Amino acid sequence: MKKLWGGRFTKSAEEWVDEFGASISFDKELVLEDIEGSMAHVAMLSKTGIITEDEAEKIKTGLQQLKGKAAKDELAYSVKLEDIHLNLESHLTELTGPVGGKLHTARSRNDQVATDMHLYLRKQVKLIVELIQEMQEELVTQAEKNVETIMPGYTHLQRAQPISFGHHLMAYFWMLERDKERFSESLKRINLSPLGAGALAGTTFPIDREYTAELLGFEGIYENSLDAVSDRDFILEFLSSSSILMMHLSRLSEEFILWSSQEFQFIELDDSFATGSSIMPQKKNPDMAELIRGKTGRVYGNLMGLLTVLKGLPLAYNKDMQEDKEGMFDTVKTVTGSLKIFAGMIRTMKVKTEQMEKATKNDFSNATELADYLSDKGIPFREAHEIVGKLVLVCVQKGCFLGDLPLEEFKNAHSLFEEDIYQVLDPYTAVKRRNSAGGTGFKQVSIAIEKAKESLGATEVCK
Amino acid sequence: MKKLWGGRFTKSAEEWVDEFGASISFDKELVLEDIEGSMAHVAMLSKTGIITEDEAEKIKTGLQQLKGKAAKDELAYSVKLEDIHLNLESHLTELTGPVGGKLHTARSRNDQVATDMHLYLRKQVKLIVELIQEMQEELVTQAEKNVETIMPGYTHLQRAQPISFGHHLMAYFWMLERDKERFSESLKRINLSPLGAGALAGTTFPIDREYTAELLGFEGIYENSLDAVSDRDFILEFLSSSSILMMHLSRLSEEFILWSSQEFQFIELDDSFATGSSIMPQKKNPDMAELIRGKTGRVYGNLMGLLTVLKGLPLAYNKDMQEDKEGMFDTVKTVTGSLKIFAGMIRTMKVKTEQMEKATKNDFSNATELADYLSDKGIPFREAHEIVGKLVLVCVQKGCFLGDLPLEEFKNAHSLFEEDIYQVLDPYTAVKRRNSAGGTGFKQVSIAIEKAKESLGATEVCK
Amino acid sequence: MKKLWGGRFTKSAEEWVDEFGASISFDKELVLEDIEGSMAHVAMLSKTGIITEDEAEKIKTGLQQLKGKAAKDELAYSVKLEDIHLNLESHLTELTGPVGGKLHTARSRNDQVATDMHLYLRKQVKLIVELIQEMQEELVTQAEKNVETIMPGYTHLQRAQPISFGHHLMAYFWMLERDKERFSESLKRINLSPLGAGALAGTTFPIDREYTAELLGFEGIYENSLDAVSDRDFILEFLSSSSILMMHLSRLSEEFILWSSQEFQFIELDDSFATGSSIMPQKKNPDMAELIRGKTGRVYGNLMGLLTVLKGLPLAYNKDMQEDKEGMFDTVKTVTGSLKIFAGMIRTMKVKTEQMEKATKNDFSNATELADYLSDKGIPFREAHEIVGKLVLVCVQKGCFLGDLPLEEFKNAHSLFEEDIYQVLDPYTAVKRRNSAGGTGFKQVSIAIEKAKESLGATEVCK
Amino acid sequence: MKKLWGGRFTKSAEEWVDEFGASISFDKELVLEDIEGSMAHVAMLSKTGIITEDEAEKIKTGLQQLKGKAAKDELAYSVKLEDIHLNLESHLTELTGPVGGKLHTARSRNDQVATDMHLYLRKQVKLIVELIQEMQEELVTQAEKNVETIMPGYTHLQRAQPISFGHHLMAYFWMLERDKERFSESLKRINLSPLGAGALAGTTFPIDREYTAELLGFEGIYENSLDAVSDRDFILEFLSSSSILMMHLSRLSEEFILWSSQEFQFIELDDSFATGSSIMPQKKNPDMAELIRGKTGRVYGNLMGLLTVLKGLPLAYNKDMQEDKEGMFDTVKTVTGSLKIFAGMIRTMKVKTEQMEKATKNDFSNATELADYLSDKGIPFREAHEIVGKLVLVCVQKGCFLGDLPLEEFKNAHSLFEEDIYQVLDPYTAVKRRNSAGGTGFKQVSIAIEKAKESLGATEVCK
Repeated sequence: MKKLWGGRFTKSAEEWVDEFGASISFDKELVLEDIEGSMAHVAMLSKTGIITEDEAEKIKTGLQQLKGKAAKDELAYSVKLEDIHLNLESHLTELTGPVGGKLHTARSRNDQVATDMHLYLRKQVKLIVELIQEMQEELVTQAEKNVETIMPGYTHLQRAQPISFGHHLMAYFWMLERDKERFSESLKRINLSPLGAGALAGTTFPIDREYTAELLGFEGIYENSLDAVSDRDFILEFLSSSSILMMHLSRLSEEFILWSSQEFQFIELDDSFATGSSIMPQKKNPDMAELIRGKTGRVYGNLMGLLTVLKGLPLAYNKDMQEDKEGMFDTVKTVTGSLKIFAGMIRTMKVKTEQMEKATKNDFSNATELADYLSDKGIPFREAHEIVGKLVLVCVQKGCFLGDLPLEEFKNAHSLFEEDIYQVLDPYTAVKRRNSAGGTGFKQVSIAIEKAKESLGATEVCK
Repeated sequence: MKKLWGGRFTKSAEEWVDEFGASISFDKELVLEDIEGSMAHVAMLSKTGIITEDEAEKIKTGLQQLKGKAAKDELAYSVKLEDIHLNLESHLTELTGPVGGKLHTARSRNDQVATDMHLYLRKQVKLIVELIQEMQEELVTQAEKNVETIMPGYTHLQRAQPISFGHHLMAYFWMLERDKERFSESLKRINLSPLGAGALAGTTFPIDREYTAELLGFEGIYENSLDAVSDRDFILEFLSSSSILMMHLSRLSEEFILWSSQEFQFIELDDSFATGSSIMPQKKNPDMAELIRGKTGRVYGNLMGLLTVLKGLPLAYNKDMQEDKEGMFDTVKTVTGSLKIFAGMIRTMKVKTEQMEKATKNDFSNATELADYLSDKGIPFREAHEIVGKLVLVCVQKGCFLGDLPLEEFKNAHSLFEEDIYQVLDPYTAVKRRNSAGGTGFKQVSIAIEKAKESLGATEVCK
Repeated sequence: MKKLWGGRFTKSAEEWVDEFGASISFDKELVLEDIEGSMAHVAMLSKTGIITEDEAEKIKTGLQQLKGKAAKDELAYSVKLEDIHLNLESHLTELTGPVGGKLHTARSRNDQVATDMHLYLRKQVKLIVELIQEMQEELVTQAEKNVETIMPGYTHLQRAQPISFGHHLMAYFWMLERDKERFSESLKRINLSPLGAGALAGTTFPIDREYTAELLGFEGIYENSLDAVSDRDFILEFLSSSSILMMHLSRLSEEFILWSSQEFQFIELDDSFATGSSIMPQKKNPDMAELIRGKTGRVYGNLMGLLTVLKGLPLAYNKDMQEDKEGMFDTVKTVTGSLKIFAGMIRTMKVKTEQMEKATKNDFSNATELADYLSDKGIPFREAHEIVGKLVLVCVQKGCFLGDLPLEEFKNAHSLFEEDIYQVLDPYTAVKRRNSAGGTGFKQVSIAIEKAKESLGATEVCK
Repeated sequence: MKKLWGGRFTKSAEEWVDEFGASISFDKELVLEDIEGSMAHVAMLSKTGIITEDEAEKIKTGLQQLKGKAAKDELAYSVKLEDIHLNLESHLTELTGPVGGKLHTARSRNDQVATDMHLYLRKQVKLIVELIQEMQEELVTQAEKNVETIMPGYTHLQRAQPISFGHHLMAYFWMLERDKERFSESLKRINLSPLGAGALAGTTFPIDREYTAELLGFEGIYENSLDAVSDRDFILEFLSSSSILMMHLSRLSEEFILWSSQEFQFIELDDSFATGSSIMPQKKNPDMAELIRGKTGRVYGNLMGLLTVLKGLPLAYNKDMQEDKEGMFDTVKTVTGSLKIFAGMIRTMKVKTEQMEKATKNDFSNATELADYLSDKGIPFREAHEIVGKLVLVCVQKGCFLGDLPLEEFKNAHSLFEEDIYQVLDPYTAVKRRNSAGGTGFKQVSIAIEKAKESLGATEVCK
């Protein structure tokens, strides 16, 4: 079969140029979406009388056959035919004869490929929302088991105040909740039909865009044909939401890696998600957490790549836009894989509660309690802070902790200190008492977990 | 005044390290938000009895005075006091005496700065939505004047099919409509209160977070204290929406630059938005369009910068996060300026309608009409396409255009060609006939403009 | 074969986790480099007596067989065996029996993979330098043909001053010259051997790192074992040099696209590098130029991706670093393809000299000549500039160009104007007279072309 | 003073557009470079007779006065005058009268600003090379003190093998050495003169570009005028080298932060580089290390920003390129500050040697020793590895370490184990024995330090 756009040309392009320009090596990923779009298009062509019912039936039968083969991965693709659209059209024409050529009436590859991408991303974003939900469920389950597990809370990677491990895990629940919101909101802009926009200007044929949109389950149509074929916002938005999601996962990865170290020993990841070393048999490496942390770079890169592609492009379609696909496919694969791995890691990890609790004892992370104690008795906060700072210095010089100081030493620092400070200094009490809304106090954590469960139950993946 | 966190330390930091670490040179931008947040906090401290009403009044009076000075830019800031929070606290203590120190009760700089940022960005995002709306209004006004102005439509920067200039402008209307949606949706996540989250874990004081949220006009509170102080998603989302917006503006910039060239001559920008050359007096450079196209890079860079900062950061607050501000301020300034400039450029530009129309005549952009003509008469599209391709080649060889060929030549190519093809080849007719939904047909463009106006009227900037 | 690191573990990892973590799907690209590295390693093990000569021979024979198969793409790879190293080792052990296991003595996958990457990139960077040189040769050839072809020179995409087309092309020669320099200089850091660094700390075996380095053609060895296995600077440098190169190509792409438009018509690209439209038979799209402009985004993204991966990674090897490969392979493919395409496009493009020259006539790009004319006669430049500005305004109002004004009008503007200004205003003269070093004057362009040729002749791709 | 390019225009631009377009708020940073360039230019104008010696003297005297004022920061700048060039010219004309206007003869702002940037960056890059050298000296000094300080070496943040702390520090020495190389090599491309390229095409005046280049200390001139004014590679290269440098610093930052944590306690940063918390008096936060890690994002963003700006820009100068400055200035400030801070941190940090050594005892990081032990006795490495893996598992089950197992247990695992294994298992011995080139063995570390010192002594910052 000769090149479909070859009539105009006197020379045939060399093979290697073809390969450089062809997209079939990656856009075959869209084969099912392309057939689905064509099914709707042909139905519309027949409904509006642009082609006859008989012609439509032949084309549909052909498409159905192609779909069957595609599902079984039995379709052959040729670089000579550039992309998935021309490959499928060629297969169709072989099956149906010349009538196959009528499928492209009132359609251009520009609106066709945009339609495929919208269909594809709609499916993937819904899947991602479900996978986020699954990871959230694992977080809630672990958090629920660990409401009263106390651990050091960190700022600047320095122990700051003791907190509930459940509370720490739940912080990620809310990050993911925002991710879910962003992906769900973006569906509104993904779920629009560009089909019927033609090459850029619409068509002279009496098509029915609302009908194809309905058949394809789109919520509406693009209002402007130039915009319909030039818009890639929906992919950028997907890449941006994915970048923020991966950023969240990279933070949790970092924590899992820290917590798995011999220095922290707060958790032990299941063997399924860790690997050994070829030379150091004692190692149990948190490979999956590291890999996901690393894959954050790939997703950021995909976002930056497409932003660069689109910068300064005049309307309407330009070949540059062929570069929209590989980064999108790669991001889908990365994000879905990472979410699945994380759900598994959270579910199977072993929480070393004694180790965590032990870490809250021998340090100064209870110093804020002292400052609050004084503040509570009317000392301006800044003054209280300074008094405690000096007590910590005393301890550092003596090589002990706050709970080890005699009451006398406290009284020297300020007369308002009483015997009850020793209870105040206990980390378990400290966590429990931080009972402000959204705080780490056990009651608050339990309330938050209940809210989260309700929220999970109420979520229904947006159509 | 000595360093507030200095009690613990035996050495004073050197001045240049201070400067490197201090944020006051840029976070003073948040002065009014910081005072606003403190006003709400002190009101709550008094309502809940954590401080006395009398103490609260003294603090409020002091804050009011600071607000007056800040509004007149009369506050002095010191690098020694690191940031806007400590600078204001120091000023307050000077005004009120030690009672000023009580303002910081049950609050940390971590939740304080997060609150400031939320307040700031809420205001700016609302402003941006309004500015987008203003630019949209200018687009609609120009489009309405140019429904029947015909110009070449381009793909691959090659003339493809003639279109309505109003239609082309309206493509940008819909891009901006999505931008507006994205910014508006992000407000949901911006308009939440982190205040009361403390350093990371909440507080032991009986605070009322709902009350401060209400006073500050927030729609709700962060559900998790660790998340409240660590979350910068709302800034990333802002930078991402801004990047997509700037990408849109860069595309329109590119078109304005092309259209202003001697080669196109489709528009003339008003002198207010163009500049001359110091050495070439004849030049009228589309400087503002170029500059905005260039500033796209800056906004992409700010997005990439913050994504990098947050990658792999463990919870909760880390000093790295101080890097969240400058890119945000810079983006606000860039985006608001660019939108204002564009509204002005669109309003004042001179559309050279004859030049545009002339460009639709002497080329092959009416070739699709011929293919559609044949297709309409039952020739499979691919075949029609090839026939027309050959006719174009004939013209190229003869040095003429399609409308110049005698009917005989057409009939040689295919017997179905009739006399009426000459009307079909007329660009005005060609545009008019592209009457599919969202197409460039004049009727469709008018309908779309009406929809746009309704949409503009209906928009009320989200609270 | 069971997992090599499995001794420590009680559970086997699930298959999908394996796939997510495995690198064999892409690092098989390094098969020949891996074998090459192993050949050198085994030679050294035998030379130093760490293994016997007999053992070495057996291993070498096995490796030789694997190399043969790899060259014919006949090796099977298994995801279960994670990466290219373990896949090859497994194949080797099958061929040689247990002695194959001795190959890994005094070596770790960490130094092994680093060695492979250095070998791979050395080869590719040398190829890229050659391809740049080929593109430069095409530029020089075209420039030489077009020394006296005059065209408008642009700033702000406004016609500024007439220039030589050969001069314009030569601007890209010098950009590429810098690219070549950067790639060549980076070879110095690529061409170092990490082999023998072990997992991170060196080894207790009496290895000879200088010997393996010599066998592999490296210029030296990494001086620090931790650095040897953690360093990916050489890939970042490659991605950065590639980004700058692609930026250059994107600029030339933009110009080719502009010049191919109906508005400019300065060049016609050969059919081999252009494509048609499926719906618009008259189109001849500069697809390859657009695609390369678009692919710039991909390379920028790869750079940003790896920068992100490495940010904040503690020493030494972390699994995140597995993410260093795909972006590198993709960039090699993109850069080599783009250079080949560009060499072809430049060689085969048709330069429309009359069209270019025509464009220099009917505009104001000769205005600087007038200003220089006055300046030459002693008028301060700024004043001369203003006088000419007013003359241009007169023309704009009269609808004519500078050469059309009567001498009288010039004399009204300033008494120093004489009859000879008409010659000064001629674009050919204008170009010719710009004879400062590196300027567009024909003599200068010819000199520059000679320099360029010498430079091309002198270049010998750095070893 | 009216706008210099105003002659052509009938309307004056509104103030806010002026501000958006003006660069004086940041390019005033180039004031001294601009004067320096003008001094050379005027000397050349006089030498070549383009202006008289008398005129030249007047201009030079004026420039000298401006230089004096600029050095004392006494020059006023106006937004109305757009940029540093027009501001200085206006000041000069005030001082000298109309003759000042002659300075701009045979020069354009396009070559002028490029010259300023080259001068600026040459100075800064030399400074950066010196600062890198200073940081290297601190690394060497600390390394020298800690050759025999043993600590755990990590891969995957898991303890892998014990290493020398001096060896670990020296890994950063070699990273910085490459940074120094890259910056130094880039000087070759920075140190070229664009002066005399005019707006884009050279000039008709008989200028002497070699002479100005010599006066300004440039090593050569740009060979092509279009390239001279369009090229920003030298800034990209600077931003890229800076990104890689910041990546290195972010890695060391990460390690300093980890090592400063209560979990590691390997170092204590000096109070000058740490800060406290406003609410938690016990905290000593590694703020400077965190801040530098965070600032990595800013530099990456600046690189990405300029890459985006330049993508797809046609030749020659476009206003977009005004965006090249702020990111460059910001990067200079960030990089120089970060290097100074790091030199200080390294010099003043307290190394907790006992804590490091203790960490090497109670874990399995000596497992590789066992495997090497067996391997040394002829057991194929993979088999040895597996045997040791099982021994580690035995320990894990018994809750002990390898050194705690009785010899019998070893012999059960393999008959080749002898009494001497207990010495082999000692971490100090283990480090010492890793004596391969570039390895962590003490002798090797000392050799490497000597090499480094020689290298430091030999370096002379490139002119």
